[in-house]
Amino acid sequence: MFILDLDDKSPTPLYRQIIDRVRRLIEAGTLRVGERLPSTRRLAEQMGLHRSTVATAYQELWSLGYIEMRPGSRPCVRARLSIAPAGGHEARGILDWERLSSGPALGIFADYRRFGLETAPIGASGPIDMASLDIDGRLLPLDQYRACLNRALRTNGPGLLAYGAPHGFRPLREYIAGRMNAHGVAATADEILITNGATHGIDLVLRMLAAPGRKVVVESPTYRQVLPLLRFHGFREIEVPMRAGGMDLDVLAAALQNQQPALVYTMPTFHNPTGISTGQAHRERLLSLCGRARVPILEDGFEEEMKYFGKIVLPLKSMDGDRIVIYAGTFSKVFCPGLRLGWIAADRDCIDRLAALRRSSELSPNLILQAGLYEFCRRGYYDLHLQKMHRTFRKRMTTTLRLLKRTISPAWAEWREPNGGYLIWLKLKPAGGRVPDWAKLFAEHGVAIVPGRHFYRSGGDHSHIRLSISTLDEDEIAEAIRRIAKALSGLHRRKSHARRFS
Amino acid sequence: MFILDLDDKSPTPLYRQIIDRVRRLIEAGTLRVGERLPSTRRLAEQMGLHRSTVATAYQELWSLGYIEMRPGSRPCVRARLSIAPAGGHEARGILDWERLSSGPALGIFADYRRFGLETAPIGASGPIDMASLDIDGRLLPLDQYRACLNRALRTNGPGLLAYGAPHGFRPLREYIAGRMNAHGVAATADEILITNGATHGIDLVLRMLAAPGRKVVVESPTYRQVLPLLRFHGFREIEVPMRAGGMDLDVLAAALQNQQPALVYTMPTFHNPTGISTGQAHRERLLSLCGRARVPILEDGFEEEMKYFGKIVLPLKSMDGDRIVIYAGTFSKVFCPGLRLGWIAADRDCIDRLAALRRSSELSPNLILQAGLYEFCRRGYYDLHLQKMHRTFRKRMTTTLRLLKRTISPAWAEWREPNGGYLIWLKLKPAGGRVPDWAKLFAEHGVAIVPGRHFYRSGGDHSHIRLSISTLDEDEIAEAIRRIAKALSGLHRRKSHARRFS
Repeated sequence: MFILDLDDKSPTPLYRQIIDRVRRLIEAGTLRVGERLPSTRRLAEQMGLHRSTVATAYQELWSLGYIEMRPGSRPCVRARLSIAPAGGHEARGILDWERLSSGPALGIFADYRRFGLETAPIGASGPIDMASLDIDGRLLPLDQYRACLNRALRTNGPGLLAYGAPHGFRPLREYIAGRMNAHGVAATADEILITNGATHGIDLVLRMLAAPGRKVVVESPTYRQVLPLLRFHGFREIEVPMRAGGMDLDVLAAALQNQQPALVYTMPTFHNPTGISTGQAHRERLLSLCGRARVPILEDGFEEEMKYFGKIVLPLKSMDGDRIVIYAGTFSKVFCPGLRLGWIAADRDCIDRLAALRRSSELSPNLILQAGLYEFCRRGYYDLHLQKMHRTFRKRMTTTLRLLKRTISPAWAEWREPNGGYLIWLKLKPAGGRVPDWAKLFAEHGVAIVPGRHFYRSGGDHSHIRLSISTLDEDEIAEAIRRIAKALSGLHRRKSHARRFS
Repeated sequence: MFILDLDDKSPTPLYRQIIDRVRRLIEAGTLRVGERLPSTRRLAEQMGLHRSTVATAYQELWSLGYIEMRPGSRPCVRARLSIAPAGGHEARGILDWERLSSGPALGIFADYRRFGLETAPIGASGPIDMASLDIDGRLLPLDQYRACLNRALRTNGPGLLAYGAPHGFRPLREYIAGRMNAHGVAATADEILITNGATHGIDLVLRMLAAPGRKVVVESPTYRQVLPLLRFHGFREIEVPMRAGGMDLDVLAAALQNQQPALVYTMPTFHNPTGISTGQAHRERLLSLCGRARVPILEDGFEEEMKYFGKIVLPLKSMDGDRIVIYAGTFSKVFCPGLRLGWIAADRDCIDRLAALRRSSELSPNLILQAGLYEFCRRGYYDLHLQKMHRTFRKRMTTTLRLLKRTISPAWAEWREPNGGYLIWLKLKPAGGRVPDWAKLFAEHGVAIVPGRHFYRSGGDHSHIRLSISTLDEDEIAEAIRRIAKALSGLHRRKSHARRFS
């Protein structure tokens, strides 16, 4: 007798339930190899099902190798290997992945263990998030975007489900070229490569240039992800300190002369983490120094479009007469990170090389999200969204700066007012001799921040923290600053208290 | 006087037209620095536009740095840098990217120049395509997929537009774990990493293991993309010849003993390009050899699910008691390549390391397409699609093999009948002494194929070609085989003709 307990109220289709039950009977040994199952007709009658439901289930069981089917005879259970033991925490194999991994890969794991788990999961409640550089989801035009994605799938048809070119979707490349033009960069579509976000662009550039002993100039502090990535690719970093006006160009000049770096990596606009944007003169001198040394510049314009205070300096790439600048842009910091779409603008020859490297490691980017984004841009939704982001963050940043000024005593901290973007780099003054663990202190008061030392190779800076307002509205910002002020006032009160009684 | 020629019939919004016209006037020098533009009200009246349209355009021009705006005064043209010269073919910078690129990167470019342009662009007409391993777009359930994508965006909301975990979308990981289970692999969601397709998975594994002087065993011939990628990561490949029953295990045993490889890369099911699936005994011995040598196996199951003839052997990973197998799967060869979604199934520790490497190079995969695919799977559409693919390709492959047998003389070529998948590996017999350029010969007859030598490091095999039926229906297959037969018969007629008169 052959009994299957099916549940016709379950959301799982009945044919799938049959498959699961029969599989379980076979795996448990209840049904043995060679044993015959009822015919399709018989089982359908027994269970009160349509014959096609049973036929579909048997077809799938056959294709999974559980049963054999021959015309004119009932299906029977196939000889089948036993399944290897289940995994999970306890399962131990004979390989030691730590020992097998290369040195550079171990560096990446160590970094991941230190920092990788910081990103708050979606919808997590907890402290107010001034740590992440995600975008406030409430501002994203989800319905418009969905309409565009639909339209793109309808218009382009199954072609969008095929492999595409490693350079990316041509219409989007054309749109981005036009967009770069608005920032003063005269790029053509051939000079644009679509990437899986700015970090992916950086990785491709490093893949192109990596060779033993090569060095890369970075600002210090710099984008946290880039430091382990440089080491992974075998580069040594040359850290050039950030001053109030940007990277110290005298130090850079000496490094270019004495250390022959292969690349200068820089964020001239809304530098991460300091928020500094360099001026025209700084940009021109940087270009001239690197041009003379014939060293390419990787310009990370991750927040280029967030110039909502209108104090505009154009990207290095716009003045790149020598064509030494590789520009990395992204849609992650204005539209949304979740698309994982960015771009590189560079010489066509350089673009083709990066495309070859992308192809070797993942063939091509998905066309679907590219076509959806193109539709979003083509309809003017991107422009409208950008304006909304500008209006909103002009207000939010103004509020942030006003509240910081009002509630944080100059005895506790100091900061520079950014020209746009999402970041404020706060220099905290110690209360007494010992520097507290700032991340811990603020977390205890319900605010997540990123400690400054994360942005240095050496990790030596214990006086700064990075505040991001990218996911917060004005009420949340006000509450976060209130909490920060409370933490700092408490700290400094304890200090003076301690002094009084010491 | 200030005249803008706007076109109210154009699909470009009027505010965008204003921006473009003003920008062009500034860039052409018609509007000079310091020159004043009409007030919002004035321009709106002049042009018969709504004031807000003009205001929006001015706002954008200001944010792009073209104009300055102060309360109470008319906007004026800002001092702005001239745009660097346009790119294109002629533009020459001062850098030589060839010289700057690393040796390994140069290898990738050389490979790309040789093979990279083979993929036919979407919708290209031309020869019948027996070269690509794309999927026949006519079989893809585009509307169902679109409905699922919509549903996913509606259900998950803006969370899908945020950064996700580097491991991938949890529900999809769970689904894939279940799916692997159906193939006899007892994986949990923690043991699954979502990748941007199988090649991306291979790249991540190579990133983890790459160290100078390390070696990797590959079948010879093997997946074409893997050879340049190995060299890029600094590996030397150990080529183990394919026999009728799979990789030569005696050669492998010697290589494991004498050359201490860091990895064995294998495609036990529907091997690319030969189409061979190894038997149970071969799989067990392969596992045992590598287990004893403590060498991890990278099992590429790129066509695992296309076992439509029902002759099933389970993946190596299903018998992996020692837990030495890293399994790379993909949705590209059953559902559609355009999603760029695949996975790795391996030990949790190994998965976490690969996730760290993915994070370092591109932060996280997009959530949107993962959630859409999950919805597609959850609703049972994937199962239904798989059944349709099985039915369809069982017929198509049967037709292909029947027609080959009927039209291709054994004097011209021989081949082995595959157990499923899309590939047939044809061994062509030379007509006379000289081996023709097969790709060229068949292209002249209107069929694109991939020559066998592409699948070897050494490139020495001039007798094989790979035929793929993945994009063709039965009529197209019939026509392609007719053309191939014609080409071969012509070749052999010329040969006998030449003999007769020599």
